[in-house]
Amino acid sequence: AATKHLDNLTKPIGSLGRLEDLAKHIYAIAAGKTPLAVTPALIYTVAADHGVARQGVSRYPQEVTRQMVNNFLRGGGGINVLSRECGLTLCLVDAGCVGGEFAAHPLLVSRRLGEGTKDLSTGQAMNRAQVLQGLRYGVQLARDAAFDGCQCIAIGEMGIGNTTSATALFAAYLDFAPALITGPGTGLNKEQLLHKIFVIEQALKLHAEILQEGDCLDVLAALGGFEIVEMCGIVLGAAAEGLPVLIDGFIATSAYVAACVIAPTVRDYAILTHVSAEPGYAKIVSFLGEEPLLHLGLRLGEGTGAALAYPLVRCAAALFNDLATFAQAGVEPVAVP
Amino acid sequence: AATKHLDNLTKPIGSLGRLEDLAKHIYAIAAGKTPLAVTPALIYTVAADHGVARQGVSRYPQEVTRQMVNNFLRGGGGINVLSRECGLTLCLVDAGCVGGEFAAHPLLVSRRLGEGTKDLSTGQAMNRAQVLQGLRYGVQLARDAAFDGCQCIAIGEMGIGNTTSATALFAAYLDFAPALITGPGTGLNKEQLLHKIFVIEQALKLHAEILQEGDCLDVLAALGGFEIVEMCGIVLGAAAEGLPVLIDGFIATSAYVAACVIAPTVRDYAILTHVSAEPGYAKIVSFLGEEPLLHLGLRLGEGTGAALAYPLVRCAAALFNDLATFAQAGVEPVAVP
Repeated sequence: AATKHLDNLTKPIGSLGRLEDLAKHIYAIAAGKTPLAVTPALIYTVAADHGVARQGVSRYPQEVTRQMVNNFLRGGGGINVLSRECGLTLCLVDAGCVGGEFAAHPLLVSRRLGEGTKDLSTGQAMNRAQVLQGLRYGVQLARDAAFDGCQCIAIGEMGIGNTTSATALFAAYLDFAPALITGPGTGLNKEQLLHKIFVIEQALKLHAEILQEGDCLDVLAALGGFEIVEMCGIVLGAAAEGLPVLIDGFIATSAYVAACVIAPTVRDYAILTHVSAEPGYAKIVSFLGEEPLLHLGLRLGEGTGAALAYPLVRCAAALFNDLATFAQAGVEPVAVP
Repeated sequence: AATKHLDNLTKPIGSLGRLEDLAKHIYAIAAGKTPLAVTPALIYTVAADHGVARQGVSRYPQEVTRQMVNNFLRGGGGINVLSRECGLTLCLVDAGCVGGEFAAHPLLVSRRLGEGTKDLSTGQAMNRAQVLQGLRYGVQLARDAAFDGCQCIAIGEMGIGNTTSATALFAAYLDFAPALITGPGTGLNKEQLLHKIFVIEQALKLHAEILQEGDCLDVLAALGGFEIVEMCGIVLGAAAEGLPVLIDGFIATSAYVAACVIAPTVRDYAILTHVSAEPGYAKIVSFLGEEPLLHLGLRLGEGTGAALAYPLVRCAAALFNDLATFAQAGVEPVAVP
């Protein structure tokens, strides 16, 4: 039905390329309800700390997570600028940064699962109860957004060390060798990168039995991060609410993959927004059969790529809704040869 | 200087990828004036008719140019929707549509060079006086935009038959064989495409002497279109005003190439916005050493790709202007290893 509608609008058939695919996708998510509505949109940037950061897998010390959340609360981060420019409301979620509760702030909600995860390379990152609580929090955050009238949800993150957790999850869920998909994150040099691969390989060995015999939640408990678990819950919740969910880069995609393992139909609701410059990312999306919208070489996280892609989503919906039909414009449509 | 500023903002170095390149580009265009300003932006969608349309090089009859301009004037076109969604003011320019002057309309300016060009496959598309007048009109349009306070200009077009003119110009200026870069435009089948290639080859033979011995304006007179000449003038004028100019797809890029031949420094002011689905386009931008911002498979024209890229330009400027520095955020910057 969406194709038929699009082919009747005043443009050569298919000439809007991926925006037409996107419009059809939104139409399907909305179960055919028109006009397509993707405004207002909310972006959840979920922050948490990682015990594995102590293994020297990031150029930045763990304290930077909290400093950056404070930077976001003062409006000085990339996601502040881009959510404002691209028309999304920003909501920061503390999923468990080291240093205790933040002071109350209108941009922040507290959904803490602890004082950062434990070191996934020496033991379980968290326990199963924390995973379940994190998923509940995430589903509830999506429900809250839907209740407030949001028509589109985006996810992004902040957490020093979280590419290590995400890479371990991709290795576990998709069976990639860590060396193939481990990247420099915030900017490791070659030697540091090799160490990061080693740490991930050690973690996969340590948790081999869980990865073989445990379920998806056991894997999240062993290797995940609090922000990853809560983003996973948001993806599940957005799908349950029938809303499109925009997935940011490397780490957000690991949460998306976990959500797909839990409930494969969430794929129908997710839009991968950009090809992260993190070198493994292109391989992962190609394996998933996905084609993200943007190719801008971003590797900042925070939800910046999802925010940048949101105007395309809005444009796709607006074109579907507002382009004149051939009849309205008095133009004779041309039959497909 | 721009790199130094960007590296001092609260993000890993280079992590904003192409948006950082874009910010540096805008900084250079503005000759270092900060804050970077790209708002307000104006898009000129320039429409004209082509005598060569009578050779069966398009699926649509020539009348559709005028019908589509009327569609734009009623707000029903793709460029209406996208200029609105992406925050550009739309101005339609009649550079010479068949059927005489349009009735006065607030969205339209009349800069007519005639009742469509003559058939470039049987003679000169226009004379040299028309080329000069078209360039003057274009330069003046850019100057008008600058005078009105515009900080960014975009160009797009409408004109049945104009991929034929643009392809002939690429062949003439860049020495591509027509068969390599001729595409289906609004949707030709294989047989029609072969005919289009034949028509372009004939035109290049007919004008061989001019292409060998004439100057850039002679080439435009032989093979150009009124909208192409005026877009070329807008590019020249934008550069003269020190403004970034966003180039839409296949046809707008032929105007950009003509402008580069006239004055190579205009390259410093132009931003190629998207890789058109017109099959020759990727080859042409690769030859030019350019990397357009978006890859969305668009082939609508009208300026739609330029409009879609404008939010990225705005975001690049906003990130440059508004991201907190490490000092402001109380985050210790990390030295490059």
